[in-house]
Order: sequence, then C-alpha cells, then structure tokens
Amino acid sequence: MRAVDLIEKTKNAIPLTREEIEFLIRGYTRGEIADYQMSAWAMAVRFQGMSQAETAALTMAMAESGDQVDLSALGEKTVDKHSTGGVGDKTTLIVTPIVASLGGVVAKMSGRGLGHTGGTVDKLESIPGYRTELSAGEFMEQAKRIGLVVAGQSGNLAPADKKLYALRDVTATVDSIPLIASSIMSKKLAAGSKSIVLDVKAGSGAFMKDRKEACLLADAMVQIGAACGRNVSALITNMDIPLGRAVGNALEVEEVLEVLQGKGPEDLREVCLALAAEMLLLCHGWSAGDARKKAEDALNSGKAYTKMQEWIAAQGGDLAAFAADREKEVPCHAVTAPSDGYITKMNAERIGVAAMLLGAGRAAKGDAIDYDAGIRILKKTGDAVKAGEPVAVLYGRRDFAPSEKCYLEAVTFGACPPEAQPLIYERRGAKA
Amino acid sequence: MRAVDLIEKTKNAIPLTREEIEFLIRGYTRGEIADYQMSAWAMAVRFQGMSQAETAALTMAMAESGDQVDLSALGEKTVDKHSTGGVGDKTTLIVTPIVASLGGVVAKMSGRGLGHTGGTVDKLESIPGYRTELSAGEFMEQAKRIGLVVAGQSGNLAPADKKLYALRDVTATVDSIPLIASSIMSKKLAAGSKSIVLDVKAGSGAFMKDRKEACLLADAMVQIGAACGRNVSALITNMDIPLGRAVGNALEVEEVLEVLQGKGPEDLREVCLALAAEMLLLCHGWSAGDARKKAEDALNSGKAYTKMQEWIAAQGGDLAAFAADREKEVPCHAVTAPSDGYITKMNAERIGVAAMLLGAGRAAKGDAIDYDAGIRILKKTGDAVKAGEPVAVLYGRRDFAPSEKCYLEAVTFGACPPEAQPLIYERRGAKA
Repeated sequence: MRAVDLIEKTKNAIPLTREEIEFLIRGYTRGEIADYQMSAWAMAVRFQGMSQAETAALTMAMAESGDQVDLSALGEKTVDKHSTGGVGDKTTLIVTPIVASLGGVVAKMSGRGLGHTGGTVDKLESIPGYRTELSAGEFMEQAKRIGLVVAGQSGNLAPADKKLYALRDVTATVDSIPLIASSIMSKKLAAGSKSIVLDVKAGSGAFMKDRKEACLLADAMVQIGAACGRNVSALITNMDIPLGRAVGNALEVEEVLEVLQGKGPEDLREVCLALAAEMLLLCHGWSAGDARKKAEDALNSGKAYTKMQEWIAAQGGDLAAFAADREKEVPCHAVTAPSDGYITKMNAERIGVAAMLLGAGRAAKGDAIDYDAGIRILKKTGDAVKAGEPVAVLYGRRDFAPSEKCYLEAVTFGACPPEAQPLIYERRGAKA
Repeated sequence: MRAVDLIEKTKNAIPLTREEIEFLIRGYTRGEIADYQMSAWAMAVRFQGMSQAETAALTMAMAESGDQVDLSALGEKTVDKHSTGGVGDKTTLIVTPIVASLGGVVAKMSGRGLGHTGGTVDKLESIPGYRTELSAGEFMEQAKRIGLVVAGQSGNLAPADKKLYALRDVTATVDSIPLIASSIMSKKLAAGSKSIVLDVKAGSGAFMKDRKEACLLADAMVQIGAACGRNVSALITNMDIPLGRAVGNALEVEEVLEVLQGKGPEDLREVCLALAAEMLLLCHGWSAGDARKKAEDALNSGKAYTKMQEWIAAQGGDLAAFAADREKEVPCHAVTAPSDGYITKMNAERIGVAAMLLGAGRAAKGDAIDYDAGIRILKKTGDAVKAGEPVAVLYGRRDFAPSEKCYLEAVTFGACPPEAQPLIYERRGAKA
C-alpha cells in the first residue's frame, strides 16, 4: 500500500477501505507517512468529502492511536457531553450535576479555552482549591463515589488527531465536516463514556457560523457514534448571541450558582435543561418527556445544587472562598448605548474577543488568565435601550478601551426590534 | 503574508496576486514554506484551477527561480520545440535541421527518457562520439556558427519546478492543467528561445490520454507564452499509435536518417513537416503556406540532411561509425499475428513499455540503456494481417518473452478495419 495511491483515490472520490484508512493514520502517527502527503489527502477530503463508513473508520483509527479510557467499571450509565464551543457557554457546570443527581455517571475530561471561547477547566479553576489534575485512580474513585468528576485532559488521547489537527490548522484544511466530526468524536470515543450528547453551536460565536452546516456536522457525529456502538445525540443550539449574561471565568461560575439555585438567565437555564434531558434519555433510556421533567425537578428542588457542592468539594474546591472572592472590588467600566432603540444583532465571537482582551481568555496557548475579568451583559438582542444607558459592564485590570471598542462593534443598534430567534434549532439522534 | 492564507484563498477559488504567487514560490524554493503547505496548495489548485494571470505568474516565478539562459546574442530567430512525450517520437532530430537549414536558430536543451517514453539525448547518444555535455561557450558558439545545437540540460534551470514536481509526484497532484502547463513552460522560458512550438500529444501513448484535455493544456501553454512575451503555438497530435515504425534509440536515429533522405514512414514525415512549418512561421513570420512549402523543399532537396550532418559532426558524432554499428548483428525476435484480420487498435504506452523491457528505456532514473534495443513495427493500426505473419520485430539482448507478451497485449486484432484517425488534431496559437 502506498500513501500516494490512497490520496489519488480520495481525490477521485473513490472510498477508502477501513484497512486503507488505518494504514494512513497508523503510518502518519508513526511518522512513516509524511506531513505533505497527509495535508494533500486532507485537502482532497475537503473537496470530495468522505462516506459514513470512511468517516467512522477514520474516527476509530484516531481514537485507537493512543490511550483509551476504560470506564467499564462504572457501569452502563456513563454519559459525556461535548460543546463545539461558544461564548458564555458554561452549560457543563450546570448540566453535569443535574445528570449525576439523577443517577447518570459523568466521568469527564474538559479542555482550556483559546481565542474567543472559554474552557470548562479555566472556569473551574476560578474556584479556589479546585484541582483539575487528578490521577487515574482519583478520577475513577470519585466517579464511582459521587457519579461526577471533571478533570483536565490527561494521558495521550487520540495523538493522531492532535497531529492531524495541527497540520490542518496550517494547511487551510480545517473546514471539512467529516474531518471536524472525526476529530471531535475520536477524542470522545477515547474518553470512554457509553453515551455522548453533543451541543453543536451555530451562529456568529460558534465555529459553525451556518445552521445547515452545523446540522450536517451533528449528523456526521451521530452517524459515527452509531457505527462505533455508542449512544450519541446532538442538539443544534443558537450561538448568535452569548449564552446567559456572563462571559469570563468567575463571572460565569457565579451565574452557574444562580441557575443551580433556581435563578439566572432563562436562555441558559433552558439550554441546560434540554442538554440534561438529552443525557438522561440516552443513559437511562427514559422518554424525552420523563427526562425533561426529572431534570427540571432536580434543578428546582436544589438536588442538582447539592450534587454540585459535593462535586466541587470532592475536587478540593472551596465555594465559600469563591463567594468571598466575588465580594472584592474588581475595576469595572460600563459600556453605554449610543442612541435610543433596540439591540438588533450581537456578534458573539467579537464579544468573546472583547472578554479575551480584558484578560478572561488566551490569545495564545499558555497565556495567563485573570479569573475576575470578563463581561456582564445587561442588554441582549431584542432588548430596548436608551441613549447613554449601560448595555454591559466590563471587568478586569487592563485598559478597557480596546475591549469597549470591540464590544460596541459587536453590537448592532437599530430603531426596530429584531425577530426573535429560536434557542434550540434541532435535535439529531436515533431515539427521542 | 502567510502561506496558510494563500492556500485558503486558492481553496475558495479567490485568485492570488502575482506578489502572492511569487511569495509562495520563492518561499518554497528557499525552504521557508513547508512541503506540507505546498502540497495542500497544489491539491487546492487541482480542484479549483487557476486563472490565466495566476498560471502565468506561477510560470514566471518558477522560471526565475534559477539560471535563465540568455540567447539574445543569437538574435530574434531563436526557436525551441517541446514535445509532451510519446512513443517513437524522434521529431526533434528531423525538425531542428529543417528549421536550421532555413535560417531558424535552434539552441536547444533536451532530456533523457524515463518509463515508456524515450528522450532526445538518449537517441543522440546512440551516435558514436556525440557529446551532449557542452560548456556554455561551446553551446553558444555552435548555435551562432551553424544555427543548431542540441545538448543535455545543464545548469540550474527552474529549480522551483523541479522541487514542486517531485512533491506533486508523491501527493497525487500531477493531474492539473495549470500546474502541468506552468511546469513545462517554466523550463522553456528559462531556456531562452524567443519562439516556442509545442507538440502536445494526445492518446494512449501520451501523458494526456484525452484529446480535449490535451487541447486545454495547449491553450494554457499558449496563453502563458503570450503573457510572457514569447511567440508560442501548439499542435495537438495523435499519440494513440507510435509515431513512425521504430521505437528504441539507434532504431529511431536510423529512421530519422531515412526521413532526412526523403524516405521513411509517412506519418513521421508529416508530423515533422507540420512542426517545422510551425517553427518557421513563428521565428520568421512567414505565412503558414510559405513555411510549409519551404520546409518540404528543405527536406526533399537534402538541405536539411546536410544541416543534420553538419550539426552531428559539430558535436563530435560520427554517422559513418553509426552506420557501421547498425550493420552488426543484434539478437531479434518476430512477433506474429494470432489470426487473420486487421490491427484495430494499438496501446502506444504499452508498446513503449515493451521497448523499455528490451533495454531501450529506463524503469528508474540512472538505469543503463542498450542503444540497439527496441522495436521495429511492421504493421500498424488499420493494416491487414495474416495469422502467423510478423507484425513487429523485437531487438535486444534480454529475454524477449516479457516484451513480446507486453507487445501482444498492446495490439488489438479484429475482423474489420478501424476508422482512420487524424494525425494532427488541432493547432493553437495567435497567428497562422
């Protein structure tokens, strides 16, 4: 078998066999197939696509390229959640205690933020004492004991994906649905949960700007799950507008605590309930109606909040110290409306960048984060505003001017209110 | 400027500027742009094509990446010829003395053969004493003195093309008209002639199997020439059938001498006259009719033959020794028709391989050649044959069996004569 012949086949839209795809991925991981062949192949995939069988084979080959977490000791109700990334997306911190409080087992690894999107691990680290680095033993023990653990990614998960993604990043071959789907799913498969719920964001703040493309990505990932013997479903959700009103690590954790205490923004609460119901449906086999009702009960009764406190404490986090920290003064600056009217549009990505400029996120890997930095959004798309009225408050210890400029560019004001947008566009998955 | 952004543009069919293409080619030649980026870019070009302006800019950037031969001391009538490669294609050895005998100046570098196609330099080296390695001074002096010199390629012509072609070869990105056109033309531009006639072969023995594709390639190369201030025209000629009746180095030179003495196969003579007329038309500005008539006169009068003798002698070649060599016995084997009927089709590429198997060509670069090895074709497409009648004679010092098997696979016999095929399909170029 020669790599050049496989590139030729893909270029001519002739599907590769499972063996051929394994040859490519194994050879590439071992350094026997050159970067220049993989990048040409990726570009051919970008133009010709891949069949469902090819996409599944690629995903499995990448999942099998490194460590694979064995969660079988935790039973059949392990359930994971993945978001394709958005602005103000703190759903993991709300959804996972809801699910764990209802018997789902969440043994989850999460990532750090980069660019305009935040990362769950960064948000959790804004809680004093919270440990994201756990040994494999600690990870499994906590999952068994309380049904919920969220750690930073450890081990050597899907190194083939890591290598291929880095190559795609510098060869303009990122924008391929089967390559994106297999990249995400290879890590999720390696992470070991039996059920996986995907939150595929669509809109200005998401990787997929277009709703139809997001649906295609969701379809591709659900199909991979089916081919690999996992229960997978996806919600395609709105990321034209930041989710909730807080953007920035400690601000978001504060909002999480509000929602878990029966308060907080309605859009955030709604997306969290939909995701939690979806996870419960998959891991318990409950009906959609039952799952939704039980998720609501867990949230309203404080059961999910109790589970959250248990989880954070188990990983060394001190919520009292967090609350005390939040009382301290952080420099802030109000962004005001330039005229009377309505907010007709928000560019969520630019709002994410505005938060990053305050120190809430990283422009490059390894940059330090100011956990207190971020944005409290006071007015969102559809809200009426008066000239000079604050629409957002910026927090942080840097010059506010660049962030304010960015924020105002991200918000469009107009005379008439815009049409309301759905929060959840569609669901994809086998059973509902 | 970043390479990844340029790949992104090409991927999205946004034309690159001249400066962007120069950035790519210069960076790649210097090793500052990685192979993996160039191969992804080449694959994007394979799918999206390039505009005429981009193709011309790419060609010029590659031509300028190394040495450029300065033929200005030879005046305005320098004229080159390039064939995209075929089987039995010995036209250069006939056409160049015709043109030089009529005042055209041919200062030409030629290549060696690889795979199923032969090379002009190999053919010339079957003449005892012929020197293909000339100093720059010798090369210019001979061109000035007798108007004709044919040497092996020397110097560092279009190194960017060499590097990019080697990369395309292993990344399945060869089959792109603008990339093929710019590869050929970059070397021709660097070789310095004012006028260039292209023989674009189409058919089973050619790189372009399809006539329409060959026309597109010819168009692309003519357009490059126009953009770069050279006179360029192209003939699209038939390579479904080997040209002439000899395949193999000394056999082909023998056939060349026959044609120059007013004999030889009609198809070969016709293609040579058409190419010679085209070269004369470009370098002298003669009408097509005049050019054709003068070419015929030069061939029929022996004027071209005299020029050929002068040229070969100038480069040390001994035609008397060549003739004596040809008298020596070379092992041979007749290939016979399996049944009565007609030859309905020939696969010229397979016939080229059959000759290579005899030692007439190289399977890999650097392989030794047996100048005496080759094939004399007795019956061609359309000829009637009797069962057991010889259709070809194989010459060489190796086992004839593999070559015979290959030859018989290459020839299709049938009960009815096939339709006659044109020899020259089309002409492309500004003036005619």
